[in-house]
Amino acid sequence: MKKIILIPDSFKGTMSSETVCRIMAGVLETHFPDAKIVSIPVADGGEGSVDCFLCALGGEKRYVRVHGVFGEPMQSYYGILPDRKTAVVELAACAGLPLAQDRPDPGKATTYGVGQLIMAAAEEGVEQIILGLGGSATNDGGCGAAAAAGVVFRDKNGRSFVPTGETLAEIDRIDCSGLNPFLRRLSITAMCDVDNPLFGEAGAAFVFAPQKGADEKAVRRLDQGLRHLCQKIAEELGADVSGLQGGGAAGGAGAGMHAFFGARLKPGIETILDLTSFDRCLAGTDLVFTGEGQLDGQSLRGKVVVGVARRAAKQQVPVVAVVGSIADGAEGVYEQGVTAMFSINTKAVDFSQSRWESEKNLEITMENLSRLLSAAFPRGIE
Amino acid sequence: MKKIILIPDSFKGTMSSETVCRIMAGVLETHFPDAKIVSIPVADGGEGSVDCFLCALGGEKRYVRVHGVFGEPMQSYYGILPDRKTAVVELAACAGLPLAQDRPDPGKATTYGVGQLIMAAAEEGVEQIILGLGGSATNDGGCGAAAAAGVVFRDKNGRSFVPTGETLAEIDRIDCSGLNPFLRRLSITAMCDVDNPLFGEAGAAFVFAPQKGADEKAVRRLDQGLRHLCQKIAEELGADVSGLQGGGAAGGAGAGMHAFFGARLKPGIETILDLTSFDRCLAGTDLVFTGEGQLDGQSLRGKVVVGVARRAAKQQVPVVAVVGSIADGAEGVYEQGVTAMFSINTKAVDFSQSRWESEKNLEITMENLSRLLSAAFPRGIE
Repeated sequence: MKKIILIPDSFKGTMSSETVCRIMAGVLETHFPDAKIVSIPVADGGEGSVDCFLCALGGEKRYVRVHGVFGEPMQSYYGILPDRKTAVVELAACAGLPLAQDRPDPGKATTYGVGQLIMAAAEEGVEQIILGLGGSATNDGGCGAAAAAGVVFRDKNGRSFVPTGETLAEIDRIDCSGLNPFLRRLSITAMCDVDNPLFGEAGAAFVFAPQKGADEKAVRRLDQGLRHLCQKIAEELGADVSGLQGGGAAGGAGAGMHAFFGARLKPGIETILDLTSFDRCLAGTDLVFTGEGQLDGQSLRGKVVVGVARRAAKQQVPVVAVVGSIADGAEGVYEQGVTAMFSINTKAVDFSQSRWESEKNLEITMENLSRLLSAAFPRGIE
Repeated sequence: MKKIILIPDSFKGTMSSETVCRIMAGVLETHFPDAKIVSIPVADGGEGSVDCFLCALGGEKRYVRVHGVFGEPMQSYYGILPDRKTAVVELAACAGLPLAQDRPDPGKATTYGVGQLIMAAAEEGVEQIILGLGGSATNDGGCGAAAAAGVVFRDKNGRSFVPTGETLAEIDRIDCSGLNPFLRRLSITAMCDVDNPLFGEAGAAFVFAPQKGADEKAVRRLDQGLRHLCQKIAEELGADVSGLQGGGAAGGAGAGMHAFFGARLKPGIETILDLTSFDRCLAGTDLVFTGEGQLDGQSLRGKVVVGVARRAAKQQVPVVAVVGSIADGAEGVYEQGVTAMFSINTKAVDFSQSRWESEKNLEITMENLSRLLSAAFPRGIE
């Protein structure tokens, strides 16, 4: 083996993608000491995405004082990649669900701090921003972020305010003339792994607000708010976000980032593959290891393993997926370029038990795959 | 790939070794259509062992009318291998626990039928008998089998009787002069995968009788009976079976078969490896697949995977173990010649759920191993 690429997603609830990379690399280095091992832990757009990008690509973390999920002042951060032209911002760093602690309330939570992080990066002079949308506590359609960047929302009495989930319906006018000029120069790519629309049964409120603390009545009110926002965006900005795929991401911030900031919504894995020049990296690679918590029928659309496999297949590089569970329908990934997939479950025990042994089980699985590959390539690949 | 050997144990409670072979062969034939695939399903000495041997080696099944587990008449069987010199007898075919149905009672169960099967095979003129001891309902120290073969047991009133577990203590004299002369000509190998002694805390009664239906009081009485039998065997036959490893197998039948029939106790897997000329079979083999329900520290002594691996390692043939569970301590098998081990658990669910999907999960695991091996040997092994 001359070169091996590790590009796993996190295993939800058990291991970050950095941890998966570290364990995989540790085992492979023992068995293939001469191989070059490239680790690209995949950020999922949620908490830890900035760290993940910095780990894969290098760069620096910048700390900024912003408004938190309920407006309270807090220290947050974004990342600058080594090219100095790209910043990575994660919504979860100031508007994430864990920050709402034991009083989550998507009616009151705001993305205002996200706008402040974007502004700070813009003022530093970057040309593009990668924005992770995962893990939000909010349902404000991105209005908070827009307000922080200079967009003014007014109610029917002409009073300006910063809308949150429960006050979206009070928006009467939207004035974008004050939008910070720095923003016009840069392109924003929002990493977005859901394709839910802004509102309706499959929309942000109905699908995601319950896990953010909304009861049935609140969900209906939040959905009405997003519908109203959609109409106002159409009237005031002349943009139709009603059918935008992923518009419902992060409590409607998908739609808001698109409407107010001109952001493009893109699957997270594609963003990463492009940013890391994965296609070029594949040259001379003998084997790619990828993985995620569960491979299933859903894995076929836009998730990490399939995203990686499609690119690798074009260059005939074999891809081994090491995963938490292989669910029904997973065999569809073979056609997408996955050579073989292995579950890390070494024992027949429930996830409530096995989750505590994930790291050990991943190590055991990698050990055995390495041993089998060593036996198959007794003299190494030339 | 030119030649692949499949030699798995059964996966206890889910798949027979024949089933494991069939699934493995089915997948491998698809991926390596030119390879010769040799299937050796391993008999564990319990129920189904005769079928297993006949499946691996060919031969015929003979049906015989014998006394069952509580003396009732029943149809039982043994196997004759193609050499016509070797018979395979399984104790479970007439004295197995499932035959005791809902009234198991190791105090009353007898191995009498086992002696009848041995006699029938001996009278057919075989030179050796392979006797599987697994799965017994009995605790009679093999006295029933001995009685069927002509050994006479007498109580202190001189009355002859056929001892069972609860009447072992009544044995006063043992007369072997009437032992059927056919038996003197043949060698018996008892397949024996436990090394428990005849009596005591680690003995047949204390360790195995509870699962055969004995309560605490009965267990103590059964143990006393076996102690008494041991003493009588010493006095009357001049043999000491008190420390015999495996003497406690099958309710003490290990010791009895040794004392009355001169049987050698041998690990099941060694018996099979010898009988199938496994060492010769390994010549020209690219890969061996073995497996069992669970790989653990216990696997290091005498179980199937390690028995197979030790032989294969001597000829540098890689061994892949495909197993139900990889338990703590299993990594010791590497030193014994196992190249790599893989669990068939594709999902993080409890055995109570996953057991119903064992066949599918084995197939998935074999599919992915085959795919990985195909990718590793894209042009095949020359």
